[in-house]
Amino acid sequence: MSSRYIYLDYNATTPLRAEVRDIMVKALDIYGNASSMHELGRTARAEIEAARANVAALIDAKNPSNLYFTSGGSESNNTVFNTMFLLGRTRERRKIITTSIEHPCVLNAAAHLKEEGFEVVFLNVDDRGRVDMDQYRRALGPDVLLVSVMAANNEIGTIEDLHEIARLAKEVGAFVHTDATQAVGKIPVSVDDWDVDYCTLSCHKIYGPKGIGALYVRANAPIEPLIRGGHQEDGVRAGTYNNLGIIGFGEAARLAALELNEYAAHTSSLRNLLRDLIIKRIPSVRINGDPDNLLPNTLNVSFPGAEGESILLSLDLEGIEVSTGSACASGSLDPSHVLMAIGLGPELAHGSIRFSLGKYSTEDEIRYVGEKLPPIIARLRKMSTVPFEKIASARS
Amino acid sequence: MSSRYIYLDYNATTPLRAEVRDIMVKALDIYGNASSMHELGRTARAEIEAARANVAALIDAKNPSNLYFTSGGSESNNTVFNTMFLLGRTRERRKIITTSIEHPCVLNAAAHLKEEGFEVVFLNVDDRGRVDMDQYRRALGPDVLLVSVMAANNEIGTIEDLHEIARLAKEVGAFVHTDATQAVGKIPVSVDDWDVDYCTLSCHKIYGPKGIGALYVRANAPIEPLIRGGHQEDGVRAGTYNNLGIIGFGEAARLAALELNEYAAHTSSLRNLLRDLIIKRIPSVRINGDPDNLLPNTLNVSFPGAEGESILLSLDLEGIEVSTGSACASGSLDPSHVLMAIGLGPELAHGSIRFSLGKYSTEDEIRYVGEKLPPIIARLRKMSTVPFEKIASARS
Repeated sequence: MSSRYIYLDYNATTPLRAEVRDIMVKALDIYGNASSMHELGRTARAEIEAARANVAALIDAKNPSNLYFTSGGSESNNTVFNTMFLLGRTRERRKIITTSIEHPCVLNAAAHLKEEGFEVVFLNVDDRGRVDMDQYRRALGPDVLLVSVMAANNEIGTIEDLHEIARLAKEVGAFVHTDATQAVGKIPVSVDDWDVDYCTLSCHKIYGPKGIGALYVRANAPIEPLIRGGHQEDGVRAGTYNNLGIIGFGEAARLAALELNEYAAHTSSLRNLLRDLIIKRIPSVRINGDPDNLLPNTLNVSFPGAEGESILLSLDLEGIEVSTGSACASGSLDPSHVLMAIGLGPELAHGSIRFSLGKYSTEDEIRYVGEKLPPIIARLRKMSTVPFEKIASARS
Repeated sequence: MSSRYIYLDYNATTPLRAEVRDIMVKALDIYGNASSMHELGRTARAEIEAARANVAALIDAKNPSNLYFTSGGSESNNTVFNTMFLLGRTRERRKIITTSIEHPCVLNAAAHLKEEGFEVVFLNVDDRGRVDMDQYRRALGPDVLLVSVMAANNEIGTIEDLHEIARLAKEVGAFVHTDATQAVGKIPVSVDDWDVDYCTLSCHKIYGPKGIGALYVRANAPIEPLIRGGHQEDGVRAGTYNNLGIIGFGEAARLAALELNEYAAHTSSLRNLLRDLIIKRIPSVRINGDPDNLLPNTLNVSFPGAEGESILLSLDLEGIEVSTGSACASGSLDPSHVLMAIGLGPELAHGSIRFSLGKYSTEDEIRYVGEKLPPIIARLRKMSTVPFEKIASARS
């Protein structure tokens, strides 16, 4: 990665790690169409199957053939929702339960099903971002087709109780999907322990390339192709195999599994340092997320009286790259739907920053941010018409 | 590309050209999420927009913002058919006209619409693979929602009269889509001259990476996202931008446009040499496709009395890589739907080989194939229970 930047936006995307980069440079020459019968095709196919085994192992999927490669997390999520759309039209079950803090991709796919006449429940979360389990239990019933709950939230890092959520869903015979895009590589993921039917993965969050992802589908769970055509991926996903992306994904997954504990320890220790520096040096901040169930690398902070986009751009001028929320929602003027869901008012939600740390984060970087951030916040607060103490005290 | 093989399967996929490979090696480090507001994000975004302009220019699309990046040709085609599915449910118009020789991707997407209650016409083609225009005219009417005809066929190389097909469709107010995957980079493509509303492109057929494609959508033509989520691509296609693939696509498109004439001249002269060698040295062969409207690089030959898969594997042992038809249909035991559509019986269709030439094909390679192929055909014909002369004469 470039050292010109202090990159603290790893939840948006990650640079290629050196090992993945090396293997991809070699894979640039593996050009055979993996569906071709000749040797060049068979060579490509063998590489793809080796990668599939590595990705399957990362989520503890016993049978790699339950894993289908897609173009990314958004396609994987849409494939599940489209399957439910096709299924639900001819069934008694046409209720979908999801949460109000999902990635825009799941929210929009769910909203589309609502337009199509499905009943869709967007569960509330508490002030730490955990699903309201009472509301969930009340929503469950024999009419529920799908429960879709993210494993961990991309903006605030809260980890959901997938095991319990899946157990309750199974009691009423519903299918369970989880978008594990942000969880994979940061916390242990086991589709078997969770007992989910569908699990969405993305490669570019674990130091692999963009444009490649996967969908795990439990044996016998229904699945319909979103992209119809050739017989690739057992007819579940048509299109010429993306050799380069898949090979990179395999290596990224292999290394992520190997270094999971080390990664969590490294990022959480630096994340805690950053959190402590911010709390110590900047008055009246609010740390968002669930401290007891938190991704090791994520720190979401509200700075009452300072506007998030202004903080972002001020830090950018110092070479520090952060985010106000999901990259997929940036450019929007709406406050973060996640921060609103955990009870922040629009003003506070607009004054929040996501710091997401990663493999290449260093203590020096964190201490540098700890130096640069306080004067930025102080300056922006001075420009604000409302005293920050007032906003801070008004929020709860 | 590797020199271990004589690669004559360029219609299945192509190796990266050196210029694209070089630019991609550099692009491995452009990791910013192009939706991010910080500098790393903006840098990635600028590269993507430069690539978009190059791809747009290749198909003579005046406004690059009419071009949307997808994961490939299959996704682009499915996006159009899914749009028609959503549109057609609430409209009087719910008839789709396509052809019997489309890529499996269009055929399967169209078959799905048929299951959904749409009227779908699969037009016949003549013995050269050209659309039956009389049948087409009869099928047209005010109930036609979409006409989808490939620009050039992947198996036999026949080029369709898109301009006339689109003109007639417009007379009845239908939308026009063309899968130009095989045409682009081989013949001039102009969405304006053709006057089509939708045009599908794939990158890996023009010496660029796999897993990236595009869909052109004329301004004001309806389009619904197949992949819902973030606001990328004006909401038409969600998902984190595939920087690497898009940057490679841009360079591949720029060079394909630049070298179009040279490419056609190079491949057609070698293709004609191969055709002449085969005709001269192997009795009773049939050349498939339309000699007056043919992709410059494609040669499809039937060898009565020899089984296609056996020819393929025998050539593979000599390091010569060819195909029996579409890679996306390989592994299937059915005879090629394209060869059946141009009137070949199953036996002859099973005895056909597609030679598709490309940038790196050389006269030496072609002459080598001209040496190796005749004894292979002779040996396989000897093993056949039916004399090849009988099959050859029975076919027409």
